[in-house]
Amino acid sequence: MKIVRSIREIKSELIRCRNKGRAVGFVPTMGYLHEGHLSLIRKARQDNDVVVVSIFVNPTQFGPDEDYGEYPRDLRRDARLCKKSGADYMFHPTVKSMYPKEYSTFISVEGLTKNLCGKFRPGYFRGVATVVAKLFNIVKPDVAYFGQKDAQQSIVIKRMTEDLDMGIRVEVMPTVREKDGLAMSSRNSYLSSDERKRAVTIYRALQLARDLIKLDDKDARGIIREMRKMLAPVATKIDYVSIVDPHTLKDVKTITGEVLVAVAVWIGATRLIDNILTRY
Amino acid sequence: MKIVRSIREIKSELIRCRNKGRAVGFVPTMGYLHEGHLSLIRKARQDNDVVVVSIFVNPTQFGPDEDYGEYPRDLRRDARLCKKSGADYMFHPTVKSMYPKEYSTFISVEGLTKNLCGKFRPGYFRGVATVVAKLFNIVKPDVAYFGQKDAQQSIVIKRMTEDLDMGIRVEVMPTVREKDGLAMSSRNSYLSSDERKRAVTIYRALQLARDLIKLDDKDARGIIREMRKMLAPVATKIDYVSIVDPHTLKDVKTITGEVLVAVAVWIGATRLIDNILTRY
Repeated sequence: MKIVRSIREIKSELIRCRNKGRAVGFVPTMGYLHEGHLSLIRKARQDNDVVVVSIFVNPTQFGPDEDYGEYPRDLRRDARLCKKSGADYMFHPTVKSMYPKEYSTFISVEGLTKNLCGKFRPGYFRGVATVVAKLFNIVKPDVAYFGQKDAQQSIVIKRMTEDLDMGIRVEVMPTVREKDGLAMSSRNSYLSSDERKRAVTIYRALQLARDLIKLDDKDARGIIREMRKMLAPVATKIDYVSIVDPHTLKDVKTITGEVLVAVAVWIGATRLIDNILTRY
Repeated sequence: MKIVRSIREIKSELIRCRNKGRAVGFVPTMGYLHEGHLSLIRKARQDNDVVVVSIFVNPTQFGPDEDYGEYPRDLRRDARLCKKSGADYMFHPTVKSMYPKEYSTFISVEGLTKNLCGKFRPGYFRGVATVVAKLFNIVKPDVAYFGQKDAQQSIVIKRMTEDLDMGIRVEVMPTVREKDGLAMSSRNSYLSSDERKRAVTIYRALQLARDLIKLDDKDARGIIREMRKMLAPVATKIDYVSIVDPHTLKDVKTITGEVLVAVAVWIGATRLIDNILTRY
């Protein structure tokens, strides 16, 4: 596996690969890799001739009061895990090379970013869409892999690649969970052991929603009320508990088909998100 | 020359060209072609193996009170001129295929779009950047050609392609003028014969600026005042007369190096722009 820092170098490496007709799979990440990321890398390995993993903590998707500075980083470990999972290239650009002084271009995906995390993290999806477009243009993959845990992100990226005719297939892989159900996240490393125990309730609340829907409950508001009751004792703050259309991400009142049940809560000073797709 | 309406078809045609190692030159236009466009097509013909011209009156770059509906269209003539000038493909997509119902993605280039036309046509450069990015992703050219007449547009597009690492070279070709100096523009067709005569003053005002600067005048405000005096009798309204840094597009007070002198005025109900690059 090759570790590449320069945009120019990764471009020229990959031009050579593509000229040989090799299919390129791409896994964009912010590093501090966990099993969720690794499942994407392994899938990319299965499906492609060349696998590129990017490690870039993207400053433009963090708000001024968010955790850009503290976001966990461990490049050595990331490199070891990338290699073990089958990556050919670990691309790790500098912030300066991605955003030189005169940088001025930003991509917004409207509509889909109004609800859920878009409501609570203004500028977040603009930062995500922009950096992913840049990375897509640099790597020019055939397929890019994202995790279902960041459901809204995947949907926004899919919309962007289609809208801008990028010709890249976006694959979304299932959320990987700890044994007790907590969704894997780099931010789980922020949790104290007490918080870690409380965090399990997030998935329990999602399961509650699934169970109620299976038991014929179609009333989104009632289900959300039950979920909030369950989360209130463990959460420092609830950003949202939402049941939305999985395509438009608009709130659903009466559940009649597939829905995305999505949660963002603060456990102590750590903001965690999770979701499940389920259907009536 | 082949006329292609479908995005999928032009993509697959051009994939075949690129796979044979052919260089693709691209001239994006809104049609109603004039000598300015044709000079770009001929330059693309000289420099590339394959030449694509797009004809697309892009609704997202027109304001609600602007001339999207009336914008002149003559596809037969355009096709004849494209062919004669050496185009291999005339790509003429439908609005529906470019912007399907669920379309939601927009690209903004900040800073560079604050002054000049960006100030008077809110949303204009957002529409331009978005459609050009789409067309670039569809055509994937090696080089794209723009005219100096739309100076701010060229600079915005250059910034975008660099910022988003699109790997496309943007070439800007000189403004082509009528014999009396009026810059060629599809919108010149709106002018009555009296307005057409008055329109010549736009270039005269630019020449006045050049002459004053050559005569050692460094005071932008003074020069702009003289230009406005010259334009006032013929213009129905002056949007701006500006002397700006050609890289940042910010107003210049004291002229010490190269500047862009740019004008947007209304002659009757027609908004015309023009500019020159000159230096102290």
